[in-house]
Amino acid sequence: MPRYKLTIEYDGEPFVGWQRQHNGLSIQGALEDAVFAFCGERVSVIGAGRTDAGVHARGQVAHFDITHEKPTDTVRSALNFHLKPHPIVVVQAEPAPANFHARFSATWRRYRYRIINRRAPPALDRGQFWHVPVPLDAAAMADAASVLVGHHDFNSFRSTACQSPSAIKTLDLLEVSRNGNEITIDVGARSFLHNQVRILAGTLQFVGRGQWSRRDVEEALAARDRTRAGPTAPPQGLCFMEVRYDLGPGRHRNDAEETIDDQ
Amino acid sequence: MPRYKLTIEYDGEPFVGWQRQHNGLSIQGALEDAVFAFCGERVSVIGAGRTDAGVHARGQVAHFDITHEKPTDTVRSALNFHLKPHPIVVVQAEPAPANFHARFSATWRRYRYRIINRRAPPALDRGQFWHVPVPLDAAAMADAASVLVGHHDFNSFRSTACQSPSAIKTLDLLEVSRNGNEITIDVGARSFLHNQVRILAGTLQFVGRGQWSRRDVEEALAARDRTRAGPTAPPQGLCFMEVRYDLGPGRHRNDAEETIDDQ
Repeated sequence: MPRYKLTIEYDGEPFVGWQRQHNGLSIQGALEDAVFAFCGERVSVIGAGRTDAGVHARGQVAHFDITHEKPTDTVRSALNFHLKPHPIVVVQAEPAPANFHARFSATWRRYRYRIINRRAPPALDRGQFWHVPVPLDAAAMADAASVLVGHHDFNSFRSTACQSPSAIKTLDLLEVSRNGNEITIDVGARSFLHNQVRILAGTLQFVGRGQWSRRDVEEALAARDRTRAGPTAPPQGLCFMEVRYDLGPGRHRNDAEETIDDQ
Repeated sequence: MPRYKLTIEYDGEPFVGWQRQHNGLSIQGALEDAVFAFCGERVSVIGAGRTDAGVHARGQVAHFDITHEKPTDTVRSALNFHLKPHPIVVVQAEPAPANFHARFSATWRRYRYRIINRRAPPALDRGQFWHVPVPLDAAAMADAASVLVGHHDFNSFRSTACQSPSAIKTLDLLEVSRNGNEITIDVGARSFLHNQVRILAGTLQFVGRGQWSRRDVEEALAARDRTRAGPTAPPQGLCFMEVRYDLGPGRHRNDAEETIDDQ
C-alpha cells in the first residue's frame, strides 16, 4: 500500500484538537474525511503530535496509506479541495517508505509560543497570541530559560493527565526573544510531555513579571511536582512549527525516549 | 481643546476602508463612534493614510480633539472597550500639540506587502496574504525593485482615480525578501500615490514570474502611463506598518510633496 507523508498547516481555533473525538470536529477527523471524499477509503491519518484544542500548526506532519498510488500533486490538491470549509491546508504531500511513521520516526519537533505584551489586545492575529497586558522582562525570561535546557526530569512541567511512563526528556532549544510588543518562545526537542510547552511558557511568564527568579525555576524543576511550576499557558499562543526525521549527530532511532507528544 | 494622537491596529477585511462612507462600516467611522460613546462628542478622527477596503494596519496614526482633557490610559482603554465588536485596537494614545496633524505632519510612512508563494493557500493568516501559487524569483524581484527607488515620476504606478496633482515622489525603501514560502515587500516614503504600493507589488510579481525583466520595469517607469505597469495587487496582502513624524536629515516640513496617501 502506498504511504503518503503530509505537511499540514491549520488554525486550531474551531477544533477539539488534532485527535478524532466524539464531542466535535478534530483536525484528524477532517483529514480522514477528506481522504475518504477523495478516494473512497476509510484510513487513519497519523500525526507527529496530538495538538490540543485551540493549538495551531504550520508544520504538523502526518501519514496515511491508500490502496492505489496517486500523483502527490493530486493528493495535495484533492485533499485541499475537500478541506476547503475548514482552516486546514495540506502544504506538501510526498511519497513515504512503508517504515515511515509520522509520530515514531520523528527525531525533532519545534513549537513556538507567542505572547503579545502590551495593554491593548491584538486586532490582527487575534487567535494566535496569549495577551499579557503587564510588562514582561524578556531578558530575564531568556536567562531563566537556560536553566531548563538539557536532559532533565520534567515531571513539574507536564499535565497530570500525561500518559508517558517517564518524565525524562532532553530539551534542546528554549529561546525567548522580544520583537516590539511580541515575545516569542521557541522550543525544540525530540519529543515533549503532555502540555510541556504551555507549562514552560506559563512558568517563564512568572519570571517575566518579576514574580519568580531564575532560582525559583531551578527549584521548580528539581521538585518534580506539577504544583511547583507555573500555570499552563492558553492554547491559542501555541503553534507546532516543524518536525524533522533526520538522524542528527548522537541521535539514534532506538533512543529510549518515549514519543508521546500531546501539546 | 486637547488633541490626542492614536496608534491603531486593525484587520481591514470587514471594512469599506479607513474613510467614513455611506455604503458600509469604515475604520474612521467606528473610531468616531467609539469617541462619541466614550465622551459624548462628535469628532473627526483624521488618519495618516486612507487605507482602502481590505487593507490592514499595525501602525496607522490618527488624531482628534475633545473638549475636556482625559488621562491617555483612559482614552486608550475606553476606546478599546467601545471598539470591542470590531477588529480595531488602539495600541497607544498620547497627548499631541495643537499643531500636530496625523496626515500633514507625517514625514515617513512604511507599508508591507505579503505574498504567500506556494501551491497551497494559507490556513493561518488567511486574510493577510496575496496567494501566488506559481514560483516567484524573489532575488529577481529585489533586483528590479532597485530601479524604482529614488525620486521619480510614478504616474505609471498610481490609480487612475488618484487625486494628487503631481506623480513625483521619493521612494526611500523598496525591499523584497523571502522567508520560506513568504515573500515580503517593504516600502517606505514620505508619502504615496493612490494604490502605489499595490501597483508596485503587482509589477514586481511580473518580474518574479519571469514574465518581465528589470528592463521592462525601467520602461514602465519611464512611460508615465498606468497601462504600462503591472496589475494592482489585492488589498488583503497590504498592511500599513508605521508612520514617523521626525524631521530626518534633509527633510523639511514644507517639502513640496503632496501628502495624499490612499492605499
